[in-house]
Amino acid sequence: MSNADIIIGEVTGTAVLILLGAGVCAAVTLKKSKAQNAGWLAIAFGWGFAVLTAAYLSAGVSGAHLNPAVTIGLAVEGATPWDQVPLYIVSQMAGAMLGAFLAWIAYYGQFKAHMADLANQPEPAEGADDAKAGPVLGIFSTGPEVRNAPQNLATEIIGTFVLVIAILTQGLNDEGNGLGTLGVLITALVVVSIGLSLGGPTGYAINPARDLGPRIVHALLPLKGKGRSDWGYAWVPVVGPIVGAVLAGLLYNVAFA
Amino acid sequence: MSNADIIIGEVTGTAVLILLGAGVCAAVTLKKSKAQNAGWLAIAFGWGFAVLTAAYLSAGVSGAHLNPAVTIGLAVEGATPWDQVPLYIVSQMAGAMLGAFLAWIAYYGQFKAHMADLANQPEPAEGADDAKAGPVLGIFSTGPEVRNAPQNLATEIIGTFVLVIAILTQGLNDEGNGLGTLGVLITALVVVSIGLSLGGPTGYAINPARDLGPRIVHALLPLKGKGRSDWGYAWVPVVGPIVGAVLAGLLYNVAFA
Amino acid sequence: MSNADIIIGEVTGTAVLILLGAGVCAAVTLKKSKAQNAGWLAIAFGWGFAVLTAAYLSAGVSGAHLNPAVTIGLAVEGATPWDQVPLYIVSQMAGAMLGAFLAWIAYYGQFKAHMADLANQPEPAEGADDAKAGPVLGIFSTGPEVRNAPQNLATEIIGTFVLVIAILTQGLNDEGNGLGTLGVLITALVVVSIGLSLGGPTGYAINPARDLGPRIVHALLPLKGKGRSDWGYAWVPVVGPIVGAVLAGLLYNVAFA
Amino acid sequence: MSNADIIIGEVTGTAVLILLGAGVCAAVTLKKSKAQNAGWLAIAFGWGFAVLTAAYLSAGVSGAHLNPAVTIGLAVEGATPWDQVPLYIVSQMAGAMLGAFLAWIAYYGQFKAHMADLANQPEPAEGADDAKAGPVLGIFSTGPEVRNAPQNLATEIIGTFVLVIAILTQGLNDEGNGLGTLGVLITALVVVSIGLSLGGPTGYAINPARDLGPRIVHALLPLKGKGRSDWGYAWVPVVGPIVGAVLAGLLYNVAFA
Repeated sequence: MSNADIIIGEVTGTAVLILLGAGVCAAVTLKKSKAQNAGWLAIAFGWGFAVLTAAYLSAGVSGAHLNPAVTIGLAVEGATPWDQVPLYIVSQMAGAMLGAFLAWIAYYGQFKAHMADLANQPEPAEGADDAKAGPVLGIFSTGPEVRNAPQNLATEIIGTFVLVIAILTQGLNDEGNGLGTLGVLITALVVVSIGLSLGGPTGYAINPARDLGPRIVHALLPLKGKGRSDWGYAWVPVVGPIVGAVLAGLLYNVAFA
Repeated sequence: MSNADIIIGEVTGTAVLILLGAGVCAAVTLKKSKAQNAGWLAIAFGWGFAVLTAAYLSAGVSGAHLNPAVTIGLAVEGATPWDQVPLYIVSQMAGAMLGAFLAWIAYYGQFKAHMADLANQPEPAEGADDAKAGPVLGIFSTGPEVRNAPQNLATEIIGTFVLVIAILTQGLNDEGNGLGTLGVLITALVVVSIGLSLGGPTGYAINPARDLGPRIVHALLPLKGKGRSDWGYAWVPVVGPIVGAVLAGLLYNVAFA
Repeated sequence: MSNADIIIGEVTGTAVLILLGAGVCAAVTLKKSKAQNAGWLAIAFGWGFAVLTAAYLSAGVSGAHLNPAVTIGLAVEGATPWDQVPLYIVSQMAGAMLGAFLAWIAYYGQFKAHMADLANQPEPAEGADDAKAGPVLGIFSTGPEVRNAPQNLATEIIGTFVLVIAILTQGLNDEGNGLGTLGVLITALVVVSIGLSLGGPTGYAINPARDLGPRIVHALLPLKGKGRSDWGYAWVPVVGPIVGAVLAGLLYNVAFA
Repeated sequence: MSNADIIIGEVTGTAVLILLGAGVCAAVTLKKSKAQNAGWLAIAFGWGFAVLTAAYLSAGVSGAHLNPAVTIGLAVEGATPWDQVPLYIVSQMAGAMLGAFLAWIAYYGQFKAHMADLANQPEPAEGADDAKAGPVLGIFSTGPEVRNAPQNLATEIIGTFVLVIAILTQGLNDEGNGLGTLGVLITALVVVSIGLSLGGPTGYAINPARDLGPRIVHALLPLKGKGRSDWGYAWVPVVGPIVGAVLAGLLYNVAFA
């Protein structure tokens, strides 16, 4: 994989992933969206098919990692050289930020209408959990329903472990190497599965770039009344997925390889 | 591809696409439909599987463009000769109009019951947004939740860009050429994804024929109380998708080819 | 295809199809079912995946017609010999009746609880539409929301046309012959599509055996308070699908073959 | 298949299956979960895609039985040697218990919040059906809506018969042997189908390990206010699936082989 391929595939792919992922959260959350209140099933399928679309267009270019945890898991397993890891991660972060920005453009009028409406409502009390995360932060980044670092971390570790072990064992089923079209489809449905089954407590980041990139964009965007970006939680969806990916890589090497 | 193949495949395929697409909107919207109020997830899967069905039956005949934006994107990329583009587009428009007409036939009694019920309700004030688009126009064509041409255009550009870049990069994953059965499935799920994630603001035309053809049929049909066809908005879902497709074709040629 | 293969494949396959199809209708309709009120999306996916399951297990045996309209469409096209058509249809009818019976067994306690509760409610007035179809007939057979034979027929013709033309054009996409696993999947999703998009007016029989077989079982079952089996409508979901299938076969031979 | 392969594949696979399956039940049931009240469609897709994920990662290792009923069905058919059956079943039970434990970890805070809330509500009367099964037992194990052993058994027999006959006939469609990636996908959608269509009465165990393993974990976990583990019902989701699997194996050998 050339450096240019990695940059093109990962920036474009991760941008599309976050555009569509933040997009479905905006669609379901914001006023003046036709999909408002479409529910959790829409979120889970929306993120899963975001992975499908993004991985489909980048699989033949960069291998469609789109996720620092996947890159690290593949590096632990041995499929990705460690010296390519930084370029993958930087490209993923850049793509994630670009995608979050595009989602804001696509829902510009919806954000405006939603924020205008929020301005008429009382603010949460200082120090309350609600005050730590702004009212539309959930469109950009994940957050816990019960704020408890060890559990939140455990949930992210478990979810990412499932994702990465499923990706690593692909080679055992599919002939040939590389992520074929059918592999893209299955991986996307695995993400739907993780969303439905393990998304309840923390919103399933399972991808450091997916969480941190849009959180930075949330902090930068000129959104009136957006509130805080909840930096106190930001380390959990970075550390948890990395730990989960390393554990999956190690288990794969010990038991499956 | 012979001219006869293009006409047969694109007219039949686009007719089925719009029959099923307008069909699901009618199913979810109209009174006396078993699917009334089935929600946005039904809309998104309904349109996506409409693409699946339509592309499946026309892929082996005309290549299943079914969308002037796709045809233009493939022409920019170089896969479709420019001198075939007009025939593709004319066939797509004819098919779209036929499909919208068939959807009206299939839901004839539902339209009648729905319009009869509307007759008892007060009309929206002259000049209001509600007065620009008739009460069942949304079954035929798309429309914005927030009427803002630059944003509406941006949303359609972004959505179509995602569709066309996903189609153009197919060749990088799949062996052989042409749109195989698995490619049809993935493309359909990409359309579900765009619907879930980017459909909230404008209803995701992402296809000039899908919007303009049924809008003409809406204007022609003898539907009592149907109201206006919102011609003031009609250029957005034509121009936006074309711009998005051209951008995708150019990016593909510069970065991916 | 030997006669034994046709009987084994079509009886087993159609029994599973109707068991699962009537099953999802029972699941969503009846009291004391965990899935009560799961909605139209559950119905559409339930019937589509019923086709998936049934076609998957019979594709390698009898070719998985499971539907007299499909058999007739394939005979018009030339793929199935006309002298095998009667055996296919008889097997499909036998399977459909067996499947409806098994669905009643699986939901025995739910039917009982539901009927007991209905006994406390006033009966519909004699001659009203509600009096023509018993309260749980919809679990077994289809029925119109607006009782209008020409429209009801048109809707069934259109829906079946889409199903059969999609099946006939399969050979144009897929290498080899016969219905492969991927073809089974796509056909199932085409049925989901028809359900979402064209199911609203009549409940999409698109299969004479699917409607007539369970209607006979409804007439025979000892269900207290079950009401009428609506025999006045029973010809529509038989004639409509046959007409739709013949039209699809003719169009295929003229334009696609 | 070596003993090590069986143990690694079945323990890991069944653990992931139950983690994701119990996970989706927790997600939809518990307070402070983002997916609370997501409905039956989320449950059915959640369990089906749990099978997808689990079978995908274990198919190339142990053949992805993940279910004593599948192992027994394959043994009756002749594909799995009878002397490997005990090891498969023990591995599945161990994996199921591990998965249920991990689901509890992932939803630790949600269980706590939910139980705290329940503590304020009146307990069901002694001897009532509600008193036989604790308030969160449904996250771990299945239970009947109408408590009637013959019907409950029949529903589990029918559901498992459909699952196992679909798995056994796979070889008739797919080239080669073993469970390919496409076979994993179809099997997962068959499980979605069984959930939607036959899950209403008993919650579709269709897998002795899926029910018994988590029930044991429910009995062992230190969950305050968890109530009874409903051991009086526990034999039904063990015996029913085994009977269904044996019937499917026998029918396959008589009619399909």
